[in-house]
This record gives sequence, structure tokens and C-alpha cells, in this order.
Amino acid sequence: MSLSEFELIERFFKRPQLAHGQGVILGIGDDCALLNLHHGEQMAISLDTMVAGVHFPLHAAPRDIGYRLLASNLSDLAAMGAEPMCFTLGLTLPQVEETWLEGFSQGLAELAQQYHLALVGGDTTRGPLTLSIQVHGRVPAGQALRRDGAMHGDLIYVSGTLGDAAAGLAYALAGAQPSEEASGYLWQRFYRPSPRLELGMRLRPYASAVIDISDGLLADLGHVLKASHMGADLQLDSLPLSEALRSTRDAEQALQLALCGGEDFELCFTVSPQEEPQMLRALQHLSVPVTRIGQVHQRTGLRLWQGEQSYPLPAQAGYQHF
Amino acid sequence: MSLSEFELIERFFKRPQLAHGQGVILGIGDDCALLNLHHGEQMAISLDTMVAGVHFPLHAAPRDIGYRLLASNLSDLAAMGAEPMCFTLGLTLPQVEETWLEGFSQGLAELAQQYHLALVGGDTTRGPLTLSIQVHGRVPAGQALRRDGAMHGDLIYVSGTLGDAAAGLAYALAGAQPSEEASGYLWQRFYRPSPRLELGMRLRPYASAVIDISDGLLADLGHVLKASHMGADLQLDSLPLSEALRSTRDAEQALQLALCGGEDFELCFTVSPQEEPQMLRALQHLSVPVTRIGQVHQRTGLRLWQGEQSYPLPAQAGYQHF
Repeated sequence: MSLSEFELIERFFKRPQLAHGQGVILGIGDDCALLNLHHGEQMAISLDTMVAGVHFPLHAAPRDIGYRLLASNLSDLAAMGAEPMCFTLGLTLPQVEETWLEGFSQGLAELAQQYHLALVGGDTTRGPLTLSIQVHGRVPAGQALRRDGAMHGDLIYVSGTLGDAAAGLAYALAGAQPSEEASGYLWQRFYRPSPRLELGMRLRPYASAVIDISDGLLADLGHVLKASHMGADLQLDSLPLSEALRSTRDAEQALQLALCGGEDFELCFTVSPQEEPQMLRALQHLSVPVTRIGQVHQRTGLRLWQGEQSYPLPAQAGYQHF
Repeated sequence: MSLSEFELIERFFKRPQLAHGQGVILGIGDDCALLNLHHGEQMAISLDTMVAGVHFPLHAAPRDIGYRLLASNLSDLAAMGAEPMCFTLGLTLPQVEETWLEGFSQGLAELAQQYHLALVGGDTTRGPLTLSIQVHGRVPAGQALRRDGAMHGDLIYVSGTLGDAAAGLAYALAGAQPSEEASGYLWQRFYRPSPRLELGMRLRPYASAVIDISDGLLADLGHVLKASHMGADLQLDSLPLSEALRSTRDAEQALQLALCGGEDFELCFTVSPQEEPQMLRALQHLSVPVTRIGQVHQRTGLRLWQGEQSYPLPAQAGYQHF
């Protein structure tokens, strides 16, 4: 192979768009990167791994892979109310393909630039295509949004629309980028998820519990309820569904995707009825809408309703990692 | 497969030995882990990836894989003079093998316990066996040991002995653990490297540049010299070689392993002649010896000497990652 590890890093990953991050004292090039926090801040960190053929189709464009990998990780920072600082990259490649690396690093840079995120270090090894990213964010001490704080009576909200990414994955698996408007939108929702960082930061004073929807609404809300020792009632008629999903799937399919489809990377959060009005004011000028979909109850278990009618809990309520 | 991701984490990675780390506010179980620094500290981070069949033999014992993966990462903290806090783990597994996971997590726990290191998060995915660890340490602001500070006239030191791990790898590749004393020692040096954390922390006030020897002495010293825009002269007769290496290899082989063999995870560092006496006093009661092997020179390039005789630079001066 023609490029050494050092040349590879120099050429593809030392881009100006990947060089500047808040709090970064020392980036790529030493044994460690060095990060700084302001007084009274804590660091929020999250590591995610993606495997070719498991987490993205083998034929996926490298630029989309890079974008999506970083976006999905930033979503974990959003779910803690943290402000992103920088990331590290573990890149395992079967061989050095320059066009692949060019696209992949561009995808990372595209998103990193939006949030002033630096790539501060990592490792490059030979092996089956596997990608790990760790993101680092900061949050005022004691203000991180955890998943264990939901209380009886809290209202349950989600951001954006649900089920789009799972529907988009079907188009992604089919290969080429779809040209039709609705399917193109769903494809985009799979490959170019929007981490809800601004929403997460604004929720800090109000939300009692927050999680990002990576495994599917029922699975992820389930994590909140389990950690909080609570149950909940969900109003299925309230679930926010995109026009694109409604127009390409029948009502029952759309509902199943919204409940069980993963990787939307929207936030699901709870807020007390007392805090709700102030929270809604704080979110007023955000570009992403939020929708109330149910209520936390001290009776454990998750109950689904269509109007007054009980609706059966789907058998497989979320993505299984194994 | 019988275990879900959550059960797997619960069973193998939520061990008491992996639960307690300094500065850890929130560990496994939420979207992010939360870390705290004291006022005036910076965080040092390093991510390493290991691939089965590339970085360790396919038949390696899982306990040794776990130990070595964490040890090699901690070595990067040592080379910055940082004190370890915690780590994250990206685990890609072809299938859930409980005996493998039991051994691997024990190997991690064995070393983590020595340094009060917590496992605070990570990701578990299905795919070809690939392991990533990111370590997090802390260092007083401005005191991190970088590789770009070597000055003309500085003395070059290394810790421990060189070439052992590369010789041990030969035994490791042969399969079973060797019983003979010398080969057993070398095997141990490959699979159970000792990160020189205490040494790194004590070097903070004295060393002008530090690196850990992962790619081989010549390659890693080369990184220091390149970053510092300096050259150096090395006295090969001074290179510290273990009794085990001397007794199992001829003099020329031992020398080549000491110069070019990777993964000893000893520290190579530079110190000014003025600081040397105080440094040696500070290191007096450390269990690991340090040896002076050469001197930094403003004339670029690396020159090797045996007594007064020039010695040719080996053609391949270190491990190539690709």
C-alpha cells in the first residue's frame, strides 16, 4: 500500500475543517490529545462503533458513512444536554483506498465544521472495515440530562418525526439514491441524521429525563422508564409522522416504524406539567418541532392507546445489537 | 445468540473492579459518561484499536488480550505524564462467547484495579473481532509531557529494557505459553506490558520530551526528533537489554530487536544536563530503572555508534501500521 499511517492522517484527517475545537489544547500528533474544561464544567463522552454490512450497507457512499457515524455519536451528547468539543476516530480498513478516505473524511468534516468540532486523535489499523468514534462535550456541572429522572405525571415529548430513518434504510439497502421526493427525504433521514444538540442544551433547565432514539421509541423510552422505575401511557394518534412516511407506507406500517424503527436520533424527553409552559417558550424559535405523546405513570409497564382503545405492544420493541 | 447487549454488559463489564475511577460522575448506563476535572487540570485522552490476527495472535488467551489492550493504551497516558482516570471500550465480536468475554473482562479488570480505573462506557457490536479502548487521564495544566520539546544537548534516556516484547511475540506466535524461564519472561513482556505511569508522572518537572516505545526505539525517537526539529547520536553499547533477551538471541539479533522491535511500552525521554541530577534523584526509588543512551543534537538525522564506530541505520526502522 502506498500511504503510511502518518501520510494518511496528514492527507485526509488534518483538514482545516477538522482542526478547530473549543477547549482543545493539543490535537493530532502526540501520545494523547489534551482537553480543557472551564471551571464548573463536566465532560460528557460517548463511544460508538459501526461495522460495514451491519450498521451501514456495504455499498454506502463513504461520505454518507462519515457523516452518519459522527451524527449518531453527537446525538448522545445532545441527549445529555452537552455542547460538543471534539472527537477521536478509530479507523480499521482492509486497505488504503484514497477515494474512500477522501469521501469519508469529507463527510466527517462537513458535520464537524457545523459544530466547530476538532478531530483530536485516534488510531488507524488494518483489518475488516470497522469505525469507532468517541465524542467529547461539556456541560455545566450537575446540569447533564440523565435518563433516570422521569417522575409520575411527567409529560412525554419527542422531537421531529419518527420512523423516517427505518423507512429510509429500506431505500438505502436498495442501493442508489432514490430520486422521488418522499423516498429521497427518507433516505436523507437515514444517512444524514440531525443531532438535536441545540434542543438538548435548551432542555437543561426543564427536562426530568432525556434519551436519544437510536434503538426505536419503545425501546429507548423503555430505558428511561426502567432507569426511573416508572411506567407510561402513550397516545399513538399523537406520534409525529412525516408527510414522506405517510405517503409511502400504509397507516399500520408507518405506526410500527415510528414505534420500533431505530436511528431517527430524535430526542425523547419528559417534563413536569409545571415546567411545560416555560419549556415550550424556551423551545419556541428552534427549527425542530416537539410533540407531546404521552405521560409517565408510577404503574410500571408501557401502555399504548389509540384514542380510548388499548393497542397491543409490538413483540419486538426495538433494535437488538446482537 | 443467548445474551442481549444489556445482559452482556451487566454480566461481564459491570464488575466491582471496573466500577470505581477518580473523577467519574456517571459511568455505564446513560447516553454519555460524565467526568470531572479538578480546577487547573487538563484531560489527556488516547484511542487505540487492536484487530485479531493483526495486533495479537488469533489463538491469544482473551485474558491476555484484555490486559495488553488496556496496558498499551495506558502507556500513552504515561508518555504524557498523566494520571489515569477511566476508559471506554468498543467491542466488536463475531459472536457472544461467554468464556471469551469472561477472560477478556478479567484481563481488563486485573489491570484496571491496579490503577483504580473505571470502565465508564462504550459500545458492543457484531462483526469481526476488533477492540478499541480510549483512556482518559488528568494532568496539571501546562505540565503534560509532549514530544516536541527536545533541545540541542539534551540527554536521551529509556526506561526498562528494549526488544523484549518483539522477542516475546515470536513465542506468542508459536502458541502455548513457554515454560522455560527466559522465553517465559519475554512472552510476559509481550502480553503483560507495564505502563510506566508512575515514571511519567515523576518526569513532569524534568523531561523536555517524552514518548512511549510502541513502534520501536528508532521510530519513536524519530518522532520526538522530527517534532522537535533535532537530530541525535545513540550509543548502542548503552542500550539496556534484558538477561532473557541476551541469553536467547545473539548480540546482533538482540540489538536489532532493541532498535526496531515495537510494543515494549517503555518510555523514551530527553532531559537537559542541568536537570539530570534532580531527575535521577526523583526517580531513585522507582522500581523501573532508566538508562542514558544518547544525546540530542541540532544536526538533524539519527546517528548510531558502537564505541567510536559508526553503525548503519537499519533499513526498516519500526513497525508500519499499514
